[in-house]
Amino acid sequence: MVTLRKQYVVTRSVYSEDCFAEDHERVFRQRKTTLDHVKEYLTCDAKRAKNAVLSLLPIIGWMRIYRIREWLLGDLVSGVSTGLVAIMQGLAFSLLAGLPPSYGLYTAFFPVLTYFFLGTSRHISVGSFPVLSLMVGAVVTRLVPDGGPAANITGFEDLTQDQQRVLVASSVTFLMGIFQLAMGVLQVGFIVMYLSDTLVSGFTTAAAVHILVSQLKFVLGLEVPGISGPLSVIYTLEKNFVQITSTNICDLVMSIVIMVVVFIVKELNDRYKAKLPVPIPIEVIMTIIACGVSYGFNFNKRFGVEIVGKMVSGYESPIAPSVEVFQESVVEAFPMAIVGFAVAFSVAKVYSIKHDYTIDGNQELIAFGVSNIFGASFRSFAASTALSRSAVQESSGGKTQIAGLLSAFMAMIVTLALGFLLEPLPRSVLGAVVIVNLKGMLMQFREIPYLWRRDRIECVVWMGTCLGATLLGLDLGLAVGLGLELLTVVFRTQFPRCSVLVNISGTDLYRDRKDYLHTNEPQGVKIFRIPSPIFFANIEFFKDKLVEAVGFQPLRVLRKRNKALMKIKNLLKKGNVNITEKGLRDLFSQSTDESHVDMEILDLPSDVKDLPNKLCWNAELPANISVPKVDIHSLILDFSAVSFLDISALKGLRTTLKEFIRVDVDVYIASCDMYILETLHSCMFFDDEIQTSMFFPSLHDAMLHVLDKHKDIRKGYAHIPQMLDWIEIWRI
Amino acid sequence: MVTLRKQYVVTRSVYSEDCFAEDHERVFRQRKTTLDHVKEYLTCDAKRAKNAVLSLLPIIGWMRIYRIREWLLGDLVSGVSTGLVAIMQGLAFSLLAGLPPSYGLYTAFFPVLTYFFLGTSRHISVGSFPVLSLMVGAVVTRLVPDGGPAANITGFEDLTQDQQRVLVASSVTFLMGIFQLAMGVLQVGFIVMYLSDTLVSGFTTAAAVHILVSQLKFVLGLEVPGISGPLSVIYTLEKNFVQITSTNICDLVMSIVIMVVVFIVKELNDRYKAKLPVPIPIEVIMTIIACGVSYGFNFNKRFGVEIVGKMVSGYESPIAPSVEVFQESVVEAFPMAIVGFAVAFSVAKVYSIKHDYTIDGNQELIAFGVSNIFGASFRSFAASTALSRSAVQESSGGKTQIAGLLSAFMAMIVTLALGFLLEPLPRSVLGAVVIVNLKGMLMQFREIPYLWRRDRIECVVWMGTCLGATLLGLDLGLAVGLGLELLTVVFRTQFPRCSVLVNISGTDLYRDRKDYLHTNEPQGVKIFRIPSPIFFANIEFFKDKLVEAVGFQPLRVLRKRNKALMKIKNLLKKGNVNITEKGLRDLFSQSTDESHVDMEILDLPSDVKDLPNKLCWNAELPANISVPKVDIHSLILDFSAVSFLDISALKGLRTTLKEFIRVDVDVYIASCDMYILETLHSCMFFDDEIQTSMFFPSLHDAMLHVLDKHKDIRKGYAHIPQMLDWIEIWRI
Repeated sequence: MVTLRKQYVVTRSVYSEDCFAEDHERVFRQRKTTLDHVKEYLTCDAKRAKNAVLSLLPIIGWMRIYRIREWLLGDLVSGVSTGLVAIMQGLAFSLLAGLPPSYGLYTAFFPVLTYFFLGTSRHISVGSFPVLSLMVGAVVTRLVPDGGPAANITGFEDLTQDQQRVLVASSVTFLMGIFQLAMGVLQVGFIVMYLSDTLVSGFTTAAAVHILVSQLKFVLGLEVPGISGPLSVIYTLEKNFVQITSTNICDLVMSIVIMVVVFIVKELNDRYKAKLPVPIPIEVIMTIIACGVSYGFNFNKRFGVEIVGKMVSGYESPIAPSVEVFQESVVEAFPMAIVGFAVAFSVAKVYSIKHDYTIDGNQELIAFGVSNIFGASFRSFAASTALSRSAVQESSGGKTQIAGLLSAFMAMIVTLALGFLLEPLPRSVLGAVVIVNLKGMLMQFREIPYLWRRDRIECVVWMGTCLGATLLGLDLGLAVGLGLELLTVVFRTQFPRCSVLVNISGTDLYRDRKDYLHTNEPQGVKIFRIPSPIFFANIEFFKDKLVEAVGFQPLRVLRKRNKALMKIKNLLKKGNVNITEKGLRDLFSQSTDESHVDMEILDLPSDVKDLPNKLCWNAELPANISVPKVDIHSLILDFSAVSFLDISALKGLRTTLKEFIRVDVDVYIASCDMYILETLHSCMFFDDEIQTSMFFPSLHDAMLHVLDKHKDIRKGYAHIPQMLDWIEIWRI
Repeated sequence: MVTLRKQYVVTRSVYSEDCFAEDHERVFRQRKTTLDHVKEYLTCDAKRAKNAVLSLLPIIGWMRIYRIREWLLGDLVSGVSTGLVAIMQGLAFSLLAGLPPSYGLYTAFFPVLTYFFLGTSRHISVGSFPVLSLMVGAVVTRLVPDGGPAANITGFEDLTQDQQRVLVASSVTFLMGIFQLAMGVLQVGFIVMYLSDTLVSGFTTAAAVHILVSQLKFVLGLEVPGISGPLSVIYTLEKNFVQITSTNICDLVMSIVIMVVVFIVKELNDRYKAKLPVPIPIEVIMTIIACGVSYGFNFNKRFGVEIVGKMVSGYESPIAPSVEVFQESVVEAFPMAIVGFAVAFSVAKVYSIKHDYTIDGNQELIAFGVSNIFGASFRSFAASTALSRSAVQESSGGKTQIAGLLSAFMAMIVTLALGFLLEPLPRSVLGAVVIVNLKGMLMQFREIPYLWRRDRIECVVWMGTCLGATLLGLDLGLAVGLGLELLTVVFRTQFPRCSVLVNISGTDLYRDRKDYLHTNEPQGVKIFRIPSPIFFANIEFFKDKLVEAVGFQPLRVLRKRNKALMKIKNLLKKGNVNITEKGLRDLFSQSTDESHVDMEILDLPSDVKDLPNKLCWNAELPANISVPKVDIHSLILDFSAVSFLDISALKGLRTTLKEFIRVDVDVYIASCDMYILETLHSCMFFDDEIQTSMFFPSLHDAMLHVLDKHKDIRKGYAHIPQMLDWIEIWRI
């Protein structure tokens, strides 16, 4: 097998980057300037205008290709099933937001209307999202707490507590919409890329913990005020446990029954997914049953079960957001805007890949921004999408947002006419449904051991985000997670595994010296590999490793040499020394005073002009002059993995290269990216000492160049490859 | 010249990484586990114990080599001049901290005592640092404001305002010391690397603005309360301008005279640096003159000039820090710990390089931690080093910390005996001296155009840090700057310049296709270069660019093929189609119902087992079956610049590779780092579809392998190199 292997034969000139550029003409490519980009952006013609309209109103795109016969039935079925889920979730999630349940129905209606026109995803179900509802709830309970007085905000005086809460919720939603719209207009949708899977997983797990804790009071039938801020989870748990003896048994039993039934049926739905045309809408069924039972047996009066109660019938007049609430909640609204968009976008992306159409992040931002602003004006709270509801919409055959529109109309019908039917529904039922839906999110805890085995750093990000978001609250937790995640990128490149490379005998390949036995290492040449970008956080580390690899401090050697040089010049002046071919021989030892030497002069290149002969620093020197021996003449840096250099790195690299050059070590840089080379040129990296001739396209080119330049060193070393004068065959 | 160039000749087998590993034995290297590291860390023998003591008490190291005759005189001279500066700066900077001037003298004394034993730097002058003093001042004025009532802290009741302030300052210093000590013990001194030069420059410029604004009131002789928190600079300026009519002319004139004189003499000092044995201590001289004049003419009484006033004579009893202040100031103490250490360390590093000795970051953290804790117990405030004072200590001949100790004793003498001499000194003089020393820091504004030309991203970091720190305050500004800086690292790699590479004719080198004219591009092979690490923020971008480069969506092609396959199988069952060598010929066109195809099945590899003949997707298909043509058979990814992969990237890469493999495109990865390959193994990256045989040590190896595998494609294409059967010479 091995003998039959194909051969790799190359015969060409040895290239440095300069020679290569001479031989191989480069195409001149005009780079666009910022001005060009602006011009291009501002150019307007019919086609561009049409595209702009199409991208701003994606509905035109999919309406034109709407296949009524094939799609309409699916959309109708899907709209009805999604509508049922949306109504139920709307009621449940409004409890998370600390609002009366009817406002959840508003959220299932208004934002959908605008998203229908503006959204690019055809499959997501727009409306309340538990994590977002909880974040709204945190602001609501902070500004309008259950026990204490409301925050000092103009216009609060004449309102009931619920009205104050609705004002706060709609204002923060409005602000969140503004943020989303602004991000969409500024085309910065790419920032969701910063939310890695690991971060989102840790964050949503923490959100599940928050939701679980916040729903306990409904399931247990306790009166616990909503708490927000850092450590609120712990305080809420404490308050629940303090009151645990006053648990409402009816609530608890009903919740447990519902949780068990829903859990089992959901498992069955999963198992028989292939056989069921549509998953059984068990939450909806159980809610209806519970509603009926509660009404029939009058749970509210008989067992003191807290029910949904009087629903607002019909819609209320639009509301203006409060600027004072904006000021109070700006720190929370921004993470809400990010989280809301990130969730909707990631769900939308899954379906867009599955059904093979494109979605546009920036247009989605605009769509959600407008939807939230519009919804907030009509008193609905923060909208995004819920994974479970979108799954219902897609799996029950929804093809376009017509299904979404239909689900919104179902919510409207309940608001306008059928709301009274939901009034006897116990709140504990809603809590139980929310809790049982947390299973998937809480199961993410299983990622910890998985990540730990694969990548410790990711595991730290997961745990940091989850712990941070659990203990500090979701907004601060997201910031902590993001900070950690950005740190990991730096951390992964901060301590790169620098290595000394050697030639693998008989090849043009270079590998880590420590890994291989049969290697070629010509005397006096060191090849140093930097396996990462170089920037402010690792330039010092890189310098240290380089000094370690070559075995001497170039600056120290330079200073000692320059000191020695001053002594020698002094001796020469006094005629006490001869410079011979063999080195320096002093005739009379004599010490010179060195205490007043200006340090800065010692860092300059050695000035050997005045000396009659060339000075060889490694040769013998006069007895009282000692200079560290430098046993390399060439240093080759492998830059193939250096994907960028920042200003700190440029400065540091420049200093280091100069130090080596000044102690007569030739420095070569191999496999440097063309764009980095251009950057170096534009940053004035080159001068008399650091020249472009040090760049080589490959390590082997640089090595051949070095070997040719130092032909003499081959003599006497058997392991160094033979070199013909013009054709050097790198084979032994 | 060109014809005489050396030749590059290589003849070897074509290697894949697998073949390479077969031929070239790797040394088995035992990696140290965490346990090994812990064991090693806990091992104790005499040498380690000695080293530990030496590293914890660096004084032993330099005391043993102390050359009394050569160094002592320098230390004495330096100690006296540094002492004068330290006294003057101590007085001035205590105004920044919002404290009575005598506490500045404490800060010039206590921290030096412990640093003398624990510090590794021999040249820095430990004591007050203006930026740090200002940060202390922000906490002090927040908790004990000038006008309003002090914060509600136990133990404040019986204290005067000054005593309250001293308690706050010493408590926050204590906490800062704890942070520094903890960081030193945990060996995390490397975090100062995150403070890049750009960030520090922007930050100190903002600090200079803060200092300038805070000193205006002294120079103008106004009574302006200290303001802290966001936008404090603007509010303070506003308060100054409102009162500008009540400027004390005597203060103003005196300040201007001093500023002008000090400025000019400093310029002269700079210009005649070489000729002057010691720079003229003009600040000290002017202070003494001003003090005398103020006393002689009784400025205080006659012109209402605010003077230093009653100095505390002698030292006060130690003070216990207040835990309540800890709680209030923890957010500020942490950045103070970082800034204090970062400044001292960077100054120390400059001198350690200049005088060629090593300093130890973690030991410095311990030294400053202990010094601040010790100093805070004796009522001094945050200590670090001031660049100007350290410059005096070093340039006036100081060799070791004995000079520092001497300067501390001078401060002690003033505190104990000569304090009354400073009492008539006008505060405006101190303010003027502080302001004139800001010149260097404010000159850093010149970096903006410099950075803008070199690197826009760095410029944004500079301006963001400076603006943030100016407007939001130094602590928040530092956080903003750090966040921005970490973002830049991600941003630089988020949109990498991916490129399609081609072979440069006659060489084994591959370059960007758009850049060169004379290139080789065998049909059906695409070489794609990823010029950066792959991680969560750029994996999507990379996928998009790859799809753009190859010109088709592999998943879409796979689905269409699988759909077509189902149709063909249907047709085959019905006997309506023949598979011939040439392709498929349908006998009767017949459409199949495709609406109920499960999408997930379409994403699996094409199941061609049941077909009698091999199916060629690019050949002719039955009329009603259309499948996108795929015009490449091999994709080579250049991984040479991929310095790391995170979990998100692994998952994304795996999916993408599978998609290509499933549409019968061979994927090869060239020049992948050995450590990344190991990571891939440990993360279970490989399976039946993705195999280790896809890895090649160089692009050319992969290309030769591809060409050999697809020998047929050479026929008819003149631009593809000749290949012999066993020896392929890549030359045209």
